[in-house]
Amino acid sequence: MSDDPTLDDPAYHAAVVDLLGALAYAELSAFSRMAADSELAPTLANKAELGSVAVTEFHHHEALVAELARIGADPVAAMQPFIHALDAFHERTRPSFWLEGVVKAYIGDGIAADFYREIARFVDDRTRDLVLSSLDDVTRADFAVTVVRDGIQADPRVAGRLALFGRRLIGEALTQGQQVAVERDGLASLLVGGVGRGGGADLAEIGRMFARMTDNHSNRMARLGLTP
Amino acid sequence: MSDDPTLDDPAYHAAVVDLLGALAYAELSAFSRMAADSELAPTLANKAELGSVAVTEFHHHEALVAELARIGADPVAAMQPFIHALDAFHERTRPSFWLEGVVKAYIGDGIAADFYREIARFVDDRTRDLVLSSLDDVTRADFAVTVVRDGIQADPRVAGRLALFGRRLIGEALTQGQQVAVERDGLASLLVGGVGRGGGADLAEIGRMFARMTDNHSNRMARLGLTP
Repeated sequence: MSDDPTLDDPAYHAAVVDLLGALAYAELSAFSRMAADSELAPTLANKAELGSVAVTEFHHHEALVAELARIGADPVAAMQPFIHALDAFHERTRPSFWLEGVVKAYIGDGIAADFYREIARFVDDRTRDLVLSSLDDVTRADFAVTVVRDGIQADPRVAGRLALFGRRLIGEALTQGQQVAVERDGLASLLVGGVGRGGGADLAEIGRMFARMTDNHSNRMARLGLTP
Repeated sequence: MSDDPTLDDPAYHAAVVDLLGALAYAELSAFSRMAADSELAPTLANKAELGSVAVTEFHHHEALVAELARIGADPVAAMQPFIHALDAFHERTRPSFWLEGVVKAYIGDGIAADFYREIARFVDDRTRDLVLSSLDDVTRADFAVTVVRDGIQADPRVAGRLALFGRRLIGEALTQGQQVAVERDGLASLLVGGVGRGGGADLAEIGRMFARMTDNHSNRMARLGLTP
């Protein structure tokens, strides 16, 4: 119930291990899927660009694993509970052509970044800084927006298909996220169970978080030139 | 014909652009294929380990691209001529299960490293240092040897299948390498055309290079516990 949670509190420690484990596996799986998706790129420059984003995710993964080890957790054990949900997300959102790969990188990272920003409010300063350091940079967004808008201009019929794909991404992210929240007490307790900074969120606040995340998703879709 | 070639010589410059372009695309495609292959890993630790090797390849790619730009070449144009052969190599050596992925990483990187070492003798000091900096480190070899030997111990029948796969790797590498040598005057001229350091190699020396590379391949196969 502390306003300023510390890792000496076993419940808070468990919650942070859950959070960092989820993020560490999210970054590792984003890395390998995105690197594989870079094979779909039509040009070498595009391939290297998506590869570079993937490599950034891997370095985030490394930083999260290092922090897990630092706070006395087994990184592999911490990631394990989140493999199923994240792998399921990726299986169900496998891009079938290059532009879907770019939409996935941009929309998927955007959803993750929103979640990072929301959860960061409930953790201690050090954990918050680490979580926020895994956020997107702007260059990447410019790259995705340019590639997708150019693709739609070249073949307007593709816009409908990409819009559907974007909706599948947010749908699967929410489905898997909810599944994880139900199964993992640690993560849920950070958000609503009172172990997080400020005692976590109440139901009304959860509703507003949800609204912010779906609003941001719609804005990102619009930026790509897609109907949300 | 110089003993100490410089980039002021247009023929030597073209040869180095060819060499760096080939290596840059080799590293980029090794990165994305290996990252994709890391999905086959049975454990998180294995997945992260192969991912880390892939990321190292990407950073080599970045260094090679930077050097191409520095010597006034268009990196994308320099890589372009080698896409077909390298993609064909990867298509024909796509691992169908985890241990094949590890054999490919170890044997494939080994063949590449042998080639790097051989070609390094024919280039100027700066280019040589860059090429040699893309070589394997020992940790990676230990990882592959342990994983493959453990895999064979757990299921001895897999050894025959992996040995066949290893032979396919060297076969495809030589086939595609020969194709590139025939098509790309620049690379060939470095080796045998007299623009390289010391005037390049004569036929007898090419024969010895070939023998060294196949010997080294056999030694690597043996280290994995496989019949060459």
